[in-house]
Amino acid sequence: MNTPDENFAALGLTLPPAPKPLGVYKPYLIDGKYLYVSGHGTVREDGTLIVGRIGDTMNDDDGKLAARQVGLSILSTIKANLGTFNRIKRVIKVLGMVNCIPEFEKHPFIINGCSELFREVWGEDNGVGVRSAVGMGSLPGNIPVEIEALFELIE
Amino acid sequence: MNTPDENFAALGLTLPPAPKPLGVYKPYLIDGKYLYVSGHGTVREDGTLIVGRIGDTMNDDDGKLAARQVGLSILSTIKANLGTFNRIKRVIKVLGMVNCIPEFEKHPFIINGCSELFREVWGEDNGVGVRSAVGMGSLPGNIPVEIEALFELIE
Amino acid sequence: MNTPDENFAALGLTLPPAPKPLGVYKPYLIDGKYLYVSGHGTVREDGTLIVGRIGDTMNDDDGKLAARQVGLSILSTIKANLGTFNRIKRVIKVLGMVNCIPEFEKHPFIINGCSELFREVWGEDNGVGVRSAVGMGSLPGNIPVEIEALFELIE
Repeated sequence: MNTPDENFAALGLTLPPAPKPLGVYKPYLIDGKYLYVSGHGTVREDGTLIVGRIGDTMNDDDGKLAARQVGLSILSTIKANLGTFNRIKRVIKVLGMVNCIPEFEKHPFIINGCSELFREVWGEDNGVGVRSAVGMGSLPGNIPVEIEALFELIE
Repeated sequence: MNTPDENFAALGLTLPPAPKPLGVYKPYLIDGKYLYVSGHGTVREDGTLIVGRIGDTMNDDDGKLAARQVGLSILSTIKANLGTFNRIKRVIKVLGMVNCIPEFEKHPFIINGCSELFREVWGEDNGVGVRSAVGMGSLPGNIPVEIEALFELIE
Repeated sequence: MNTPDENFAALGLTLPPAPKPLGVYKPYLIDGKYLYVSGHGTVREDGTLIVGRIGDTMNDDDGKLAARQVGLSILSTIKANLGTFNRIKRVIKVLGMVNCIPEFEKHPFIINGCSELFREVWGEDNGVGVRSAVGMGSLPGNIPVEIEALFELIE
């Protein structure tokens, strides 16, 4: 059985830079065995943001890739601050927020882009937590997806 | 004083089937004394979903009933997995998300449909937790209400 | 080093009345060392609510002041029920929900109105937690900002 770090390496993906706060908040906070992660956005490898509204300027597949990119930015925050994905025992909770037109209905498909990434890193059981995937009226900088998460650390 | 199971039985209500995940997430997760419940939707007894947008295709009373149905689907997830409502000590937190037109203002009235159900099952004090009741831009499958919750288990 | 109560007194601000629940929920709930605070709104000193939609009837600076007023209403709930801000060790998490037009992009600027207030009270480190700042489709009573929060208490 591989470690989360080995699982991530096997994916051959590159992490974007860990995002700096865009306001008065911390990107992450540790409270005992809990790792809270602030709402993260669609940071690309070059530090720019994927922008757009799903159902308007972006289609479903673009949106799912955007959610995967949000997952990568969360992984980047973890890697930059904890040094390893191995310190995380499991995903507890994900709140997946989608910037889309009012008629959009496939929020779970979009947020799977992040959830499948977490599952690839931490596995079928530990990589999957509870979740809500919902449609917002708007998101900062017109990013298509923002995700916040709660993880359990290995004590 | 009645148990939560007795309280629920006295209501004479029927639980819908416990919803299967529509994506990569778990319907519930236990972490020590905490029971996290994923965003649940408006599952009817026959397994279909109530759909519609409040202020558009649904009125306030329809919306409140839809929120009650979400509450029943959360109860169904609890019953199917924990076997009893008696293992829950209290409601800690509810996030009530309403799919409505931008002019809608009565989100607390809608989400009371779920909160009153929880109060009937676990009582005036333990059945009532903190809450936010807010308006989304859209919800999966155009359901009118989605609710996620955090409960405390009896240790 | 000043206490949080001293920090707040030095600001020369007046707390609005602690808001009564508008539905079936508790304004706050204590679970061990955790203080959960329900979604709070823009309560003025006279008990009325600031109403409006950012980008439509309110501009960015109005919105930031509205978020600060939400912060004051949260402080009022804490003061009325715990008696002091000194019992709070730190801010863990803030969810800042903005009622704005779909084109709005400056949610972090708005929610800073609350986050800067918390930082003034509890300091650079303890006063700043994780956060998401996002745009809703609508909010109860057409308030421009609603914020829920999680604090850690001094044990």
